[in-house]
Amino acid sequence: MFEQISIIGCGLIGSSVFRALKKSNKVKKVITFDIDKSVTKIIEKENLSDKIVSNPKEAVINADLVFISTPISKFESAVNSIKDHLKPGSILTDTSSVKKGPNEIIKKFKFKNISWIPGHPVAGTEKSGPLAGSSELFKNRWTILSPGTNVKKEDVKKVSDIWESMGSKVKIMSVSEHDQILSLTSHLPHVIAYNIVKTSMSNGDKLKGDIIRYSAGGLRDFTRIAASDPVMWKDIFIDNSDLIIRAIENFIKNLTEFKIAIQEKDSKKLLDIFKKSKEFREEIIKAGQDTDKPDFGRK
Amino acid sequence: MFEQISIIGCGLIGSSVFRALKKSNKVKKVITFDIDKSVTKIIEKENLSDKIVSNPKEAVINADLVFISTPISKFESAVNSIKDHLKPGSILTDTSSVKKGPNEIIKKFKFKNISWIPGHPVAGTEKSGPLAGSSELFKNRWTILSPGTNVKKEDVKKVSDIWESMGSKVKIMSVSEHDQILSLTSHLPHVIAYNIVKTSMSNGDKLKGDIIRYSAGGLRDFTRIAASDPVMWKDIFIDNSDLIIRAIENFIKNLTEFKIAIQEKDSKKLLDIFKKSKEFREEIIKAGQDTDKPDFGRK
Repeated sequence: MFEQISIIGCGLIGSSVFRALKKSNKVKKVITFDIDKSVTKIIEKENLSDKIVSNPKEAVINADLVFISTPISKFESAVNSIKDHLKPGSILTDTSSVKKGPNEIIKKFKFKNISWIPGHPVAGTEKSGPLAGSSELFKNRWTILSPGTNVKKEDVKKVSDIWESMGSKVKIMSVSEHDQILSLTSHLPHVIAYNIVKTSMSNGDKLKGDIIRYSAGGLRDFTRIAASDPVMWKDIFIDNSDLIIRAIENFIKNLTEFKIAIQEKDSKKLLDIFKKSKEFREEIIKAGQDTDKPDFGRK
Repeated sequence: MFEQISIIGCGLIGSSVFRALKKSNKVKKVITFDIDKSVTKIIEKENLSDKIVSNPKEAVINADLVFISTPISKFESAVNSIKDHLKPGSILTDTSSVKKGPNEIIKKFKFKNISWIPGHPVAGTEKSGPLAGSSELFKNRWTILSPGTNVKKEDVKKVSDIWESMGSKVKIMSVSEHDQILSLTSHLPHVIAYNIVKTSMSNGDKLKGDIIRYSAGGLRDFTRIAASDPVMWKDIFIDNSDLIIRAIENFIKNLTEFKIAIQEKDSKKLLDIFKKSKEFREEIIKAGQDTDKPDFGRK
């Protein structure tokens, strides 16, 4: 049981952490801070905090565990604003989708007697902001923790337990493993989604109405992914650029081979790729990461 | 009101046409034929036909309207099997996702006194086969008809009315317009989905488990699209190859520019692309082609 947990940044993820924590009964008090007054107003109106504070110092001074859930580009200034006020012996964690950047920033601050345990709940929707949050967001999803080797095992266990109390499964891996896997399962798909929308839009206004009208043939689903929070994704692409660029290059290589298979009417090669894709999806469904229910446009 | 409509090919689309027609009350009798005995067994068991016949001749001999709903690669042999038995003055239509190939095949047969009205309901799911069908599949979706200029207006009206009776909206456009728009809204997204799954799989068995586990970050949604019927998609890619190759090349051009923007940490350019994608999605939602409800993994 934590006496006090604080959340810095109350968007989709931060507000979902609050919602899930309150259901977990593993914490007495959750204090929240957000730099954006319009967000604070929503947090207040929707009762998404035990106590809203107006400065970061007040948020963290008595906290046993602090979540930083800001966009990555705001991470450094968020840490800077709390660095002198963290309680000795407390735990600092985050929810960023890339671990390298935040991890390097924390190293610069040379904290003493603070356990830095980077975290990433692999969950979300295309919606952003506190109203989009849900106490169920992390249920049956995975949270990855990437603590350094010098961090106390019992602190890692505490953070792991709190995520499990929110319905999440927890896996420990290194910062670089995390960033490589996510570059493939999340960052590359978002790069591709933005570019496919851009490609279909780049045919001039004449076709635009038709493209919107007939988007149910596949394009629609990509636009959903491409509607995710712009600032968050800009930060992710820049922070994990090396691995994402490598993924893009591999993708272009595969796509060029695929193009040649179409040009050569190579049915065998195409069918082989499709068969493997289908099998891969079956494994995702078996792993509980998607439903087998067909999508009729989510009517 | 049609006296008799026949459906050749009873997969996802053919069986959905039957289901929707029966609710429409615009036809007295629907006769079905499928070359695959296992499909016929399902059609029988699920009551998805007023009369199942065992040869194509029997299916079409008294039909006022014939739907060909086979994969494109079976289209020619399907037409060949009915060509001498079509009722004079009757209407022949199809449901293929590419219009060029089927249209050229029909031209070769030089039908007299048969109205050929190519059709394509832009609807579907990642599931295939008669059990995946639904009477609601075409509701609020668009069906494109591409009749030649010499086809009787009243026959086009009849086919248009029958699609509307199944809940679909109808648009008339040329074969080449159809194939160009669909190359962007449907064919390119499927090409991309297959290739993104291939790219994430091509990192060896070591990462495979992790990639499946963390697929909820975006990849999952692409695997759904990449689970669509393999034979159908192989046929579409080969039949519409010229336009699809052009779309792939434009896509690679955009993706390469995007890669450079990431390399150069060009926040402004990235944010501009994201903003336009978001706006485009809003137009798709406004056009009723997707829901604004967030996707939490379709729990």
